[in-house]
Amino acid sequence: MNINRRNFLWSAASGTVGLAAIPAILSASMPTAPKKQKGILSSLNKGDVILFQGDSITDAGREKTKQLANSPGSFGSGYAFLSASSILNEFASKELSIYNRGISGNKVFQLADRWQKDCFDLKPGLLSILIGVNDFWHTLDGKYDGTVVKYENDFRQLLTLTKKMLPEVKLVICEPFAVLGCSAVNENWFPAFDSYRIAAKKMAEEFDAVFIPYQAIFDEAQKHAPGKYWTGDGVHPSMAGNALMAEAWIKALK
Amino acid sequence: MNINRRNFLWSAASGTVGLAAIPAILSASMPTAPKKQKGILSSLNKGDVILFQGDSITDAGREKTKQLANSPGSFGSGYAFLSASSILNEFASKELSIYNRGISGNKVFQLADRWQKDCFDLKPGLLSILIGVNDFWHTLDGKYDGTVVKYENDFRQLLTLTKKMLPEVKLVICEPFAVLGCSAVNENWFPAFDSYRIAAKKMAEEFDAVFIPYQAIFDEAQKHAPGKYWTGDGVHPSMAGNALMAEAWIKALK
Repeated sequence: MNINRRNFLWSAASGTVGLAAIPAILSASMPTAPKKQKGILSSLNKGDVILFQGDSITDAGREKTKQLANSPGSFGSGYAFLSASSILNEFASKELSIYNRGISGNKVFQLADRWQKDCFDLKPGLLSILIGVNDFWHTLDGKYDGTVVKYENDFRQLLTLTKKMLPEVKLVICEPFAVLGCSAVNENWFPAFDSYRIAAKKMAEEFDAVFIPYQAIFDEAQKHAPGKYWTGDGVHPSMAGNALMAEAWIKALK
Repeated sequence: MNINRRNFLWSAASGTVGLAAIPAILSASMPTAPKKQKGILSSLNKGDVILFQGDSITDAGREKTKQLANSPGSFGSGYAFLSASSILNEFASKELSIYNRGISGNKVFQLADRWQKDCFDLKPGLLSILIGVNDFWHTLDGKYDGTVVKYENDFRQLLTLTKKMLPEVKLVICEPFAVLGCSAVNENWFPAFDSYRIAAKKMAEEFDAVFIPYQAIFDEAQKHAPGKYWTGDGVHPSMAGNALMAEAWIKALK
């Protein structure tokens, strides 16, 4: 990833190339999902539970006392809220219960610590996980000494247990992503951070999960507007960035 | 409107008729907009301002100190947030500024009281207004003595001034709606409330505004799930109801 390349792309998009010539972000960045992965939302049963899990990107300022299904305050204002709202509208007759249990700052081992209460007890039929940016980010200030090997091993252990406890659960693994040139993401992130993205993709393949390629999506988005438009700090998405994430999530599962 | 008819529709939808046979809510309830009204979002200029105005349905718990553009906290969790997020994603290259200035409890004359600060000062290129349910609702407990004639006259005065101050502004008038059989809406609302809906549509015609027929949309939605699924009290939408409203809003302006 190269910040000059990004700037060039943005300049080109704003200038003579013309915006109409740029393909839509998702059609360019998100290949059509394999057939076996399509139609997951349509295949859900009446009364099924969907669970969004992850860190601050999923948390998005939700309240953590009541933690209700299908309730705005319990969802925060991120991609999980936007995705859930859209699903509850489009699949109204399924009477789904959708929860957000993301917690700001979490790394993958912290999901494991609360997995009984915040996953198994909810009996999800569909489980979506976005985790990994803190597993890397928190190593930069020396306050966390985890490695990508630990991230991968912890993630594999979590998913193995999940498949054991919920054999029928449909899995979504969202790629951790970082946008260079924003306030919290600089050249020091690369290529080290890329290995976390690769590990997440490997987990999706091992566990037959739908994989949402958010890095490619945010890379492509920068042909339409600068990185800071999509995420102020390079990690936490703006309204536009969250809407793009939700659009991708829904597209992958429809 | 008849609650027994509603129950029949929902029973039929849940039973032998089969959900696959029910057309999608918006294609059934929202006729294709006249050609002149299509493409409004695409026709906006770079840097244009969009303003959502109204009562609690628009307010949706937004913060009222900073009142920032394109900021989740300043948007609350309603249809305005969902619509704005989607617009900021899809029309990223336009670098739009989108505001929510709905205030809970407002009637149309209260919009007028704050119109300089909460409309003209923002210089919107596109202005969307959803107002009217309180103009009726607050008369039921005897605390407000306004009539539908006052609602219509006040609304006309507000729109006349708006067109004078912002001759180029594109207008959206959202139909006030109420869903029978929910906690706050009973038979006493009808047919009196219908006259407010009719007045709002009349204003849309007089001022060449896009009209979003939310009553027909929520009526149609009840073929897919009960009224309470879309709005607990019959006035304030659920996550599903807000997503349906946003979908309709976007569909009308694309």
